[in-house]
Amino acid sequence: MDTRFGLLHALRTIRDEGDVVIVIDQTQLPHRLVERRLSSLDDAAHAIRSMQVRGAPLIGATAAYGVALALREDAGDEALDQALVTLAGTRPTAVNLHWAIARMRARLAPLAPAERAHAALNEARALCAEDAATNHAIGEHGLTLIETLAREKHRCINVMTHCNAGWLATVAYGTALAPIYAAQASGVGVRVLVSETRPRNQGLLTAWELRQAGLPHTLLADNAAGHLMRRGAVDLVIVGADRIAANGDAANKIGTYMKALAADDNSVPFYVAAPGSTIDWNCPTGDAIPIESRSGDELRAIVGLDSHGRPMRVMLSPGDTSVDNPAFDVTPARLITGIICERGVLSPDALRAAFDRAHI
Amino acid sequence: MDTRFGLLHALRTIRDEGDVVIVIDQTQLPHRLVERRLSSLDDAAHAIRSMQVRGAPLIGATAAYGVALALREDAGDEALDQALVTLAGTRPTAVNLHWAIARMRARLAPLAPAERAHAALNEARALCAEDAATNHAIGEHGLTLIETLAREKHRCINVMTHCNAGWLATVAYGTALAPIYAAQASGVGVRVLVSETRPRNQGLLTAWELRQAGLPHTLLADNAAGHLMRRGAVDLVIVGADRIAANGDAANKIGTYMKALAADDNSVPFYVAAPGSTIDWNCPTGDAIPIESRSGDELRAIVGLDSHGRPMRVMLSPGDTSVDNPAFDVTPARLITGIICERGVLSPDALRAAFDRAHI
Repeated sequence: MDTRFGLLHALRTIRDEGDVVIVIDQTQLPHRLVERRLSSLDDAAHAIRSMQVRGAPLIGATAAYGVALALREDAGDEALDQALVTLAGTRPTAVNLHWAIARMRARLAPLAPAERAHAALNEARALCAEDAATNHAIGEHGLTLIETLAREKHRCINVMTHCNAGWLATVAYGTALAPIYAAQASGVGVRVLVSETRPRNQGLLTAWELRQAGLPHTLLADNAAGHLMRRGAVDLVIVGADRIAANGDAANKIGTYMKALAADDNSVPFYVAAPGSTIDWNCPTGDAIPIESRSGDELRAIVGLDSHGRPMRVMLSPGDTSVDNPAFDVTPARLITGIICERGVLSPDALRAAFDRAHI
Repeated sequence: MDTRFGLLHALRTIRDEGDVVIVIDQTQLPHRLVERRLSSLDDAAHAIRSMQVRGAPLIGATAAYGVALALREDAGDEALDQALVTLAGTRPTAVNLHWAIARMRARLAPLAPAERAHAALNEARALCAEDAATNHAIGEHGLTLIETLAREKHRCINVMTHCNAGWLATVAYGTALAPIYAAQASGVGVRVLVSETRPRNQGLLTAWELRQAGLPHTLLADNAAGHLMRRGAVDLVIVGADRIAANGDAANKIGTYMKALAADDNSVPFYVAAPGSTIDWNCPTGDAIPIESRSGDELRAIVGLDSHGRPMRVMLSPGDTSVDNPAFDVTPARLITGIICERGVLSPDALRAAFDRAHI
């Protein structure tokens, strides 16, 4: 990683010490910085399911490490299959999970069991290194968009994002925030407009991350995004993605679709930043993307700090009101100005051609 | 009020005992049902400013009572002016406040000071009775829309709302929820989709109110509205308004505009329910409507119940992140299917003609 990511380097979202994988427990942020040590398949599956790790690229990396942890005890065909199936069942929408699992299967299945544990650890490490490199490339491609706007407007550029698609959501750099960090490193003035991202408040992760980096940012209620665009306070929107269909429709954190509608209504450019591993060529359109439905308790209860700075869970609403809590929505390709990936900034309908040309 | 509003009758949002005005402290809901006794101009101004009372029609009613409370001590010209100015400065967006104040001025200024206190109390009571009657009419007009859908679809009708525009926001019946209560009374099956309405969570007031009435409802994150419309789970949207411009542009709780965009994108009818007193003929378009900006603490801290059922304030995010917290946004008339008011269901461009004909 660059030296400009000094802090982020010290605080890796995921790293290993050979027989143990260490992650930041993101359910404790922004209130507390706590690491968790994962030493088994179950630990890894639990970390993904409970959202101790979250963000499509980081879920993929954790799943890869989960395979490595599983094979330390039993590297037979059955154990390998079992590990892959268990990890694939942790969360339904982010396709990077399935991409990482397919990659581990392709690498490990042909090997003799005795070779698998070592190979799995190396493959997980390689996947993480590639994630960092991919996101770095996303940052450089996205930077050109911000630089162009900065040259036009001769002022700080206001970038709206949604949820957390920063370094916390990846192995390094982030996806939607990678261009922001690249702009900071290049001396281009940026301010990030951070939506709270109910119900799980991942916007507070983004605010935490940006505070660590010393980047100017402003927190908003999710509801405020449209009004800010109408009043000209947003120069561009960059969000991440959990799965992109072959036609460019993109599933991302619930609420993204309405931000895209507001951007369209106000001629604000709307970009999706994601690695090629987020594209699911088996999904022709967004309608085929499975949308995770999560517990209503995410709306009923919330964790904050009490007046003594102690973490505290409070109930916002009684349990007898029913809750519908979809975790993602689909933004149709027609609302997406471009997809920022490791191959450049592509229009949604150019996606297939760009990746076909690269034989991927 | 109808007998079907038995409970609501017992729990009036505002009532007087001659020298004291009693309101429900809505900052304590849904956790606790607490009444406040207002006995001075300052009490009334504080109740509006601190959102103990909220909702455009109820703000107007409270302001009218605030004038009556002020004149009990001093009913001279200067005291009257002072009361009107103080109340007008409490909140900027809801125009019903200014409408109620103008009405009190017109009624009271021509009178001798000795007659004013009595007249003010009577005028406040009359204004409240008219609000109930107006909202009842809104309910009956809105009911026809729901009945038509129920006949077409032969099933329960799913109505999405935003914020709280129920009886808690008015003297009785509510505006956006008045058609829902009318449907319930007529035996038409309805389910209400209730958005949380960050940052102040007025959706929890709506859920509380609907629980009292035994009406089926489902709580959602604000972010989920677009996804639910895309998947066909919403038959129509009805929201309230804080100010409607002469061209039909409507200011309402922040987040309304994005719901209207999503409704438009999915061919879901989008209605604004509000009394004629919410129309500001001096605002040619929504651009002229002042938008209140509120404290960032509304996003930083939240009140809930701890595990012992005690109200508890927790901090969600540190104070050193800047916050932009506009309380309202403007939905352009082009996105509004109709305005449900006491004169019927009007298209936004028919507003002026309908009210001109009525010489108002």
